[in-house]
Amino acid sequence: MLVIGELINGMYKQVAEAIKTQDEQIIQQLAKEQVEAGANALDVNTGPSTEDPLGAMRWLVETIQRVVDVPLALDSTKPKVIEEGLKIVTQRAIINSTTAEEEKLDTILSLALTYNAQIIGLTMDKRGIPRDRVQRSELALKIVSTCMEKGIDLSDLYIDPVVLPVNVAQAQQIEILEAIREFSLLSDPPPKTVVGLSNVSQGAKDRNLINRTFLIMAINNGLSAAILDPLDKELMKALITAELILNRHIYCDSYLEAYVRK
Amino acid sequence: MLVIGELINGMYKQVAEAIKTQDEQIIQQLAKEQVEAGANALDVNTGPSTEDPLGAMRWLVETIQRVVDVPLALDSTKPKVIEEGLKIVTQRAIINSTTAEEEKLDTILSLALTYNAQIIGLTMDKRGIPRDRVQRSELALKIVSTCMEKGIDLSDLYIDPVVLPVNVAQAQQIEILEAIREFSLLSDPPPKTVVGLSNVSQGAKDRNLINRTFLIMAINNGLSAAILDPLDKELMKALITAELILNRHIYCDSYLEAYVRK
Repeated sequence: MLVIGELINGMYKQVAEAIKTQDEQIIQQLAKEQVEAGANALDVNTGPSTEDPLGAMRWLVETIQRVVDVPLALDSTKPKVIEEGLKIVTQRAIINSTTAEEEKLDTILSLALTYNAQIIGLTMDKRGIPRDRVQRSELALKIVSTCMEKGIDLSDLYIDPVVLPVNVAQAQQIEILEAIREFSLLSDPPPKTVVGLSNVSQGAKDRNLINRTFLIMAINNGLSAAILDPLDKELMKALITAELILNRHIYCDSYLEAYVRK
Repeated sequence: MLVIGELINGMYKQVAEAIKTQDEQIIQQLAKEQVEAGANALDVNTGPSTEDPLGAMRWLVETIQRVVDVPLALDSTKPKVIEEGLKIVTQRAIINSTTAEEEKLDTILSLALTYNAQIIGLTMDKRGIPRDRVQRSELALKIVSTCMEKGIDLSDLYIDPVVLPVNVAQAQQIEILEAIREFSLLSDPPPKTVVGLSNVSQGAKDRNLINRTFLIMAINNGLSAAILDPLDKELMKALITAELILNRHIYCDSYLEAYVRK
């Protein structure tokens, strides 16, 4: 599955500071460490605090691309910020993200077509976050059908069921997990699926344990990609073992060493 | 879910030795430790080496019952050995196990009715172990329908999809996991489900990691019970966290301490 490293995000103090002071070394170290630990792609988010988000996105993309050669998930609620990254990526990018709102979908899918990018589609719209698997599938279907209308290959679409923290939305977890399973029935070929994993443990005490348990359950339900912290070694071991059990790697005694992505 | 402690089994050298020398202390310590670690029931298996399996079963049940007060899963391929335990259990027992073979089913279901016991039904018959989820469901349906004919409550039946080692039967794992999900569609109310967990990692190097990853996936698919090593702390943490995510415990920051069964 596709592992998207989450650590280059201006929500983290160290990254916000690096953006402010244009400290290339911090960003490049985070990029290299994540790829070495098994990330196949890197999320890039300028965070909320910068005064020049376009400049920050441009600087981040350029800085990262000088040291690693992986696709970037350009992560912003502002299409202009995403476009600034799309203009200069050297690998095929992932737009993170669109919602199911018509206006937003129109804007983001046009960007995807113009710049030949993949897309993450969140199952939410103006009414907010869906309350169950059925509403999630309805919103997913809207994104899927709009992609089909615009001629976007469904293998370039990752549907995100919107992961919520277990400590405030406990009854939602099974809805989110089953939604991943149901998304695969929406079309043939089905869209891919992705989660922003760390949300599930936001504010909880045993964060790493909750993250890896939820990830295994999601992989069991067919998850195609996850935005996560690849430096969490137990998380990466859990991921590789779940894939082993689902027969995606051939078993050998040293499978952990063999299948860590390097 | 029901946790059945696996450690009192004559396949283990220490237990075989204790049976031979009638060393009560070793057996009673294993019983107490497992219950303290969260086992709701204990598997009792005399192992293959004893010359007097009926006497060994009687001695084990009596020895265990003097120190803990939990249901016992009487584990033998020989109905006579199981019956020897059924005669003296003080709590409602679980018969481990019957297959889907008619003759065996007849014998075991009669014992279950006579002694008011629950039953584990393995999805295998004279042809051996099934090759996919469909064959597993067919065999499960045979056990379910035979129970219905004999007037056995389906809530007293645990269907076991027969877990195989990942290192020799890797493609079987997804069949076993999906079979657990499909068993819940066989009847209304559905039968319960159980796995002998440690089989999945037999002969593998990272046994504990494989065990807990498989268990989380099985719980995600609706597993009701597992025969496992409750002294494996990371395994019990994984189990409790999977149940938390499925909303079976109410979240609190100290949920691990709150929900470990004591």
